[in-house]
Amino acid sequence: MPGTAHGGPTLAVIAREAGVSVPTVSKVVNGREDVAPHTRRRVSEVLERRGYLRRPVARAPREGVGGLVDVVIHGLDTSWATTLLSAVENATYRVGLDIVVSAARTGSGRTGRGWLDRVADRGTAGVLLVLVEPTPSQRAWLRHHRIPHVVLDPISVPPPGVPSVGATNWAGGVSATEHLLRAGHRRIAVVSGLEDTLCGQARLAGYRSAMAAAGLAVLPELTVMGDFSLESGRRRAGELLDLPEPPTAVFACTDQMALGVCDAARERGMTVPDDLSVVGFDDLPEARWARPALTTVRQPLNEMAAAAIGLLVRLMRGETAEADRIELSTCLVERASTARPPVRGGRAAAPS
Amino acid sequence: MPGTAHGGPTLAVIAREAGVSVPTVSKVVNGREDVAPHTRRRVSEVLERRGYLRRPVARAPREGVGGLVDVVIHGLDTSWATTLLSAVENATYRVGLDIVVSAARTGSGRTGRGWLDRVADRGTAGVLLVLVEPTPSQRAWLRHHRIPHVVLDPISVPPPGVPSVGATNWAGGVSATEHLLRAGHRRIAVVSGLEDTLCGQARLAGYRSAMAAAGLAVLPELTVMGDFSLESGRRRAGELLDLPEPPTAVFACTDQMALGVCDAARERGMTVPDDLSVVGFDDLPEARWARPALTTVRQPLNEMAAAAIGLLVRLMRGETAEADRIELSTCLVERASTARPPVRGGRAAAPS
Repeated sequence: MPGTAHGGPTLAVIAREAGVSVPTVSKVVNGREDVAPHTRRRVSEVLERRGYLRRPVARAPREGVGGLVDVVIHGLDTSWATTLLSAVENATYRVGLDIVVSAARTGSGRTGRGWLDRVADRGTAGVLLVLVEPTPSQRAWLRHHRIPHVVLDPISVPPPGVPSVGATNWAGGVSATEHLLRAGHRRIAVVSGLEDTLCGQARLAGYRSAMAAAGLAVLPELTVMGDFSLESGRRRAGELLDLPEPPTAVFACTDQMALGVCDAARERGMTVPDDLSVVGFDDLPEARWARPALTTVRQPLNEMAAAAIGLLVRLMRGETAEADRIELSTCLVERASTARPPVRGGRAAAPS
Repeated sequence: MPGTAHGGPTLAVIAREAGVSVPTVSKVVNGREDVAPHTRRRVSEVLERRGYLRRPVARAPREGVGGLVDVVIHGLDTSWATTLLSAVENATYRVGLDIVVSAARTGSGRTGRGWLDRVADRGTAGVLLVLVEPTPSQRAWLRHHRIPHVVLDPISVPPPGVPSVGATNWAGGVSATEHLLRAGHRRIAVVSGLEDTLCGQARLAGYRSAMAAAGLAVLPELTVMGDFSLESGRRRAGELLDLPEPPTAVFACTDQMALGVCDAARERGMTVPDDLSVVGFDDLPEARWARPALTTVRQPLNEMAAAAIGLLVRLMRGETAEADRIELSTCLVERASTARPPVRGGRAAAPS
């Protein structure tokens, strides 16, 4: 039976066994998207069973860990991305790794075939995806090339076998809401993030849980959805503040949206926190720069980055991850944007 | 005469010719710091004359430009660094390069020998130093390894032969001051950046030039120095505002310091821009987020990054740079932190 240079089965053998053509096997191996899911699954199964690896070069680096890690990050120009990238750089520095940084570009070559080829060419030891989901074909490609990957702050629940590190978003939503409840607020609104994201869902669920635990109804008119951006926070908070019975407090599920909520209040001649309490989420630099400085839920970005890199290093060494999914705890940072509800006009006491 | 594997002279030949020991030549070639400057210069001259290259591997990449560029950046966790890094990533993406990103760490291995060794090992095609100065030994090392490097936003005037890209900081200082003069201000203070930096000096000089052109004296009590940080802006502006005759406008040489100036005004019950006009410099995201949003001088960071990468690519191709130093023009962005001087109390009209 003919074998490859490294003694594995040829594509022809795989193709025969999977009942497909050689070009189809080649497509799966090379991470192309134009293969039907069930075909890819069947070919992948045969490839794994036969131990086929296109590039069985040991990824283990020269000394200690060493080598390059590819970091693909969503939207490099946000302060969230910077803070996280800085944390990742610090974590890799401490273990002697260097990082190749790419911004994820939808529909472009950066995370497409060209990028995968370059990842293979430069002998990348591991891949860290930050707020980026690998496609099934990319995962298959990385697996076949024995390049471990970890997802940091996953957008959705990663499939089994894809290790990920995130924050306890649900618990953070609970603590933000509980903080407002403790201050005496009852009419608490929420500006959630996009509902198709894991963090958006979890933070909103945390708000709901805390309200329910306090025996308060979650009112549809006080539950609005933004898209994580300042402008969406401003617009949706404007609608809340223009209600006949506006909320006395708003939990915005990102700092950027919280800044937008503060803008909406300012535009209506309201003062934060005297007329409206606002809590954000993330604890990005802008939360400290804001005036009043934002009370917010801190994500432990440094610890998350260190955990993700630690996980990746273990996988690079051929060890297994002790858990597929790690969540690190958030904590409330109290600053100047929250206070007791206003007493004038009876707004705080208005029946909901 | 014994030669190296690639036919060049041995270290012994170089040592004899330079009148030093072989270990000393070795130190120079390997970029070690423990060589006296005049010795390094003498050895470098001989090395260059004899065409000695430790690693004459062609850096030219596989297809088109391609390959890796090492980006060493000062303080990865500032919004200035993010904005610039995002611009650099975008510029390299467009020419098919990937970037290895490292934060500069003073006195650590990141930009020391370990880093240089890794740069050589991974076949880096070029190095971009962002607000980081290469040491003479690093420059010698990079030159001997034929790895071109470019400095983006140099801290001081780079030595001849080191191409750099910056902004027209002097002209920016002029336009910020002229904007305040046009609004009717006469008592204009400046919070400069550190005087040992090129941008700090140039922006302050721009302020002085504009004041002189308007026939106004530059008063020592209205010229204070910060360290680029928000806190330094707050403290130094506090001193200015506590003067018997405070300024009606402040030009702060960074956005962060301008935010600090706004804080100092707020702490004294003053409103920006009604009681005090403030102009920043940089146009970072926080200038847009600030309330009031900052009038500031925009540095063309995207264009600067593209120019630096363009320059690096030309050097990687073996072409020469058409100019050692490129400065791209700044422009004033008018937002909400500047207005006419206050009329009450006669402060605006107070003789200086």
